[in-house]
Amino acid sequence: MKKIEDIVSLCKRRGFVFPGSDIFGGMAGTWDFGPLGVILKRNIMNEWWKYFVEERDDIYGVDAAILMNPRTWVASGHTETFADPLVECKECKSRFRADKIAEGITESVTSEEFLATHTKCPVCGKENWGPIRKFNMMFLTHVGAVLPDDDSKLAESHVAYLRPETAQGIFTNYKNVLDTFYPDLPFGLAQQGKAFRNEISPRDFILRDRECSQMEVEYFVRPSEWEKQFETIRLLQHDFLENRMGLNPNEIHEYEVPEEDRAHYSKCTVDFMFDYPNGEEELMGLAYRTDFDLMNIQRESGKSMEYRDKVTGECFVPHIIEPSIGVERLFLAVFSTAYTEDELNGEKRVVLKLPENLAPYKYCVSPLLKNKPELMSKAKEVYALLRKKYKNVTWDDSGNIGKRYRKQDEIGTPRCVVIDFDTLEDNTVTIRDRDTAEQIRKPIEEL
Amino acid sequence: MKKIEDIVSLCKRRGFVFPGSDIFGGMAGTWDFGPLGVILKRNIMNEWWKYFVEERDDIYGVDAAILMNPRTWVASGHTETFADPLVECKECKSRFRADKIAEGITESVTSEEFLATHTKCPVCGKENWGPIRKFNMMFLTHVGAVLPDDDSKLAESHVAYLRPETAQGIFTNYKNVLDTFYPDLPFGLAQQGKAFRNEISPRDFILRDRECSQMEVEYFVRPSEWEKQFETIRLLQHDFLENRMGLNPNEIHEYEVPEEDRAHYSKCTVDFMFDYPNGEEELMGLAYRTDFDLMNIQRESGKSMEYRDKVTGECFVPHIIEPSIGVERLFLAVFSTAYTEDELNGEKRVVLKLPENLAPYKYCVSPLLKNKPELMSKAKEVYALLRKKYKNVTWDDSGNIGKRYRKQDEIGTPRCVVIDFDTLEDNTVTIRDRDTAEQIRKPIEEL
Repeated sequence: MKKIEDIVSLCKRRGFVFPGSDIFGGMAGTWDFGPLGVILKRNIMNEWWKYFVEERDDIYGVDAAILMNPRTWVASGHTETFADPLVECKECKSRFRADKIAEGITESVTSEEFLATHTKCPVCGKENWGPIRKFNMMFLTHVGAVLPDDDSKLAESHVAYLRPETAQGIFTNYKNVLDTFYPDLPFGLAQQGKAFRNEISPRDFILRDRECSQMEVEYFVRPSEWEKQFETIRLLQHDFLENRMGLNPNEIHEYEVPEEDRAHYSKCTVDFMFDYPNGEEELMGLAYRTDFDLMNIQRESGKSMEYRDKVTGECFVPHIIEPSIGVERLFLAVFSTAYTEDELNGEKRVVLKLPENLAPYKYCVSPLLKNKPELMSKAKEVYALLRKKYKNVTWDDSGNIGKRYRKQDEIGTPRCVVIDFDTLEDNTVTIRDRDTAEQIRKPIEEL
Repeated sequence: MKKIEDIVSLCKRRGFVFPGSDIFGGMAGTWDFGPLGVILKRNIMNEWWKYFVEERDDIYGVDAAILMNPRTWVASGHTETFADPLVECKECKSRFRADKIAEGITESVTSEEFLATHTKCPVCGKENWGPIRKFNMMFLTHVGAVLPDDDSKLAESHVAYLRPETAQGIFTNYKNVLDTFYPDLPFGLAQQGKAFRNEISPRDFILRDRECSQMEVEYFVRPSEWEKQFETIRLLQHDFLENRMGLNPNEIHEYEVPEEDRAHYSKCTVDFMFDYPNGEEELMGLAYRTDFDLMNIQRESGKSMEYRDKVTGECFVPHIIEPSIGVERLFLAVFSTAYTEDELNGEKRVVLKLPENLAPYKYCVSPLLKNKPELMSKAKEVYALLRKKYKNVTWDDSGNIGKRYRKQDEIGTPRCVVIDFDTLEDNTVTIRDRDTAEQIRKPIEEL
């Protein structure tokens, strides 16, 4: 069994993921990517971009600002509805999300319903609750020249929010793209970027954080075609997750979200659940958002969001299908899929069986012994050669060769190339395979 | 003469850069990148990453969270000193940065000094000023379960700031990297990411915005070596700007910042100024930050920031050299360098002479005529072929061929490939060069 603690520990030990602001005692719900984590994260994000934007003719990219005009969130409904039911224990003053500490209630729970569950405070064990209050999860800030002692200005001040989803940055640019590129339906707009949610209790490593990176496509379709397009995009997600990210199809489970649990904008949502080491959790969502968002923007802005068919002249507001994935959730799915414990020559070993296209390094180059100048210089030559050919090649001359193999196994390097005394004679090297630990010899020019 | 208005207009017309939240009346100081802008921005950022991280052995990447523990900004001095002198006109209530509306004063101006300049309000023309006040430019927010009517919690609440620079996300991870990678000095940590500054008056298109992307290296060196390393890194910046970004060396001017104007952390700063269309402006900065940052963190966190020399055993806190560049500033430098107006067959033309490695599309494929099925299908075949070979190839069958050339010139596509009736006979195509407008014929397989 893979344990989440082992994965968190490997992430920290090998420089993939560190707790955010750790040196200052941390910042709950934030995580920093270390040298290897950055490469893996970039590889995942670039592969997504390639698959959903660069390899397609019908999807354009955009990159909108995180700070948006606050009317965006009035139009989208976030100001009103993007809130969790917060409850405070009157005894110890701890605060909780009501629907997370009581059984059988939903986000729309009332104070009466909550009290009827007779829940005890998870901190002090008493049962003395204040009323349920709505806690908006958007981070609020103020834009412009406002001073701390400046109540008059604050009242009429320029409130802004850190965007709680990247999607609105796409919708607000839909008309810009329509007016500059004249795309035919269906077409999509894709975006990668940060989103922020003020989670009451961030938890589960990088799964429920306050700051995350999202990758979303908003796919604009004819209203009559939504089911067909939804199905096409659903299959694309599986292809991407399985064939580009190396996830196991048996660990991905589709779950059609019932009406009462769906986000306020959706008429049909399929959650892609994944078997994480600590249980089944949402990996990504695929939502049919209808014309909800564009109609909201049309109403709030007073500007037409209609698309005009170039052949028939027909005018209508397109409907939207949205595949949305959190980078950190995908990162953890990829990482825990790759994480393997096995036995090698009677010793326990940890190996990260990352797919070739995602591994931080493709090759590790090593001299068999460090203290032999002729091996070192030959190894450096091979290293330089491979670096020219592939961008991600690493060098390791620390410890002994066995330790180096263990380290490269743990960071997921598919192949170790070792330069030994035979190399000096016949220009062949040992290539050691990460997954099988098998070694073969090959001429340098065949690498 | 290149005019900034023409560049802003082209950016909008062709889908490079749109004003942020435009549909809702905008959000001052924010900008959204459209379909072509995203590609150009990504190309610039990826080229930087390749140059400063992937092609080097001594620089690692990191990717830290935007929300950091607020002690970060106490340690760094930002809470105290990252402030502009704000002045309010008592007549019309307009607010300004004092040092931007009066001549000959600096950021540290006092009320008396400002009044002595006898500045008139740029809005109402009167001269009736309130006192100078310090306006901190960090965006403030609150983290955790705080409700709007919740003054008691707010007082002791979890204040957080949107990071005003990416650098601190690197410094706070220095020890993490030291403990997991054991790098030899000198070594660097590189990061790309968003930073936020609550500018009193954002202006100059994407030059002075409230939300920007930074690319920074913090290079850790032996204190005795700083001058040598500073010089090496200074030359690297020139190489990058000129040979990877295509900037004209005659338009880059180094300016050694005098002590009174330097940031509080720097002992030597060279600003790289660039001749933008609307005047000389800072493009990037190269700062010798000494041990200022690591010593601050050591003091505030109580944890040792010392590096231990593996050979001599000597322990010391490394010094830091920091090349820092704003992506938007570099984007505009690249864009305005490429922006060219010339004359072609007696007609005025706009052409974007982007370097090959940065152009959004490498090729545009077109059929000579759209209404000839045999040309269309042959053209689609060539398009598919090129798409396989290069990731960024575009298709255009709109309007007539002359209009298509104009459009591709404006978006900087180096080569247009046109399929005509001769192609059907002999498998050759017309290749039209963006910069010279010259046309040659080539067999398809030679593309």
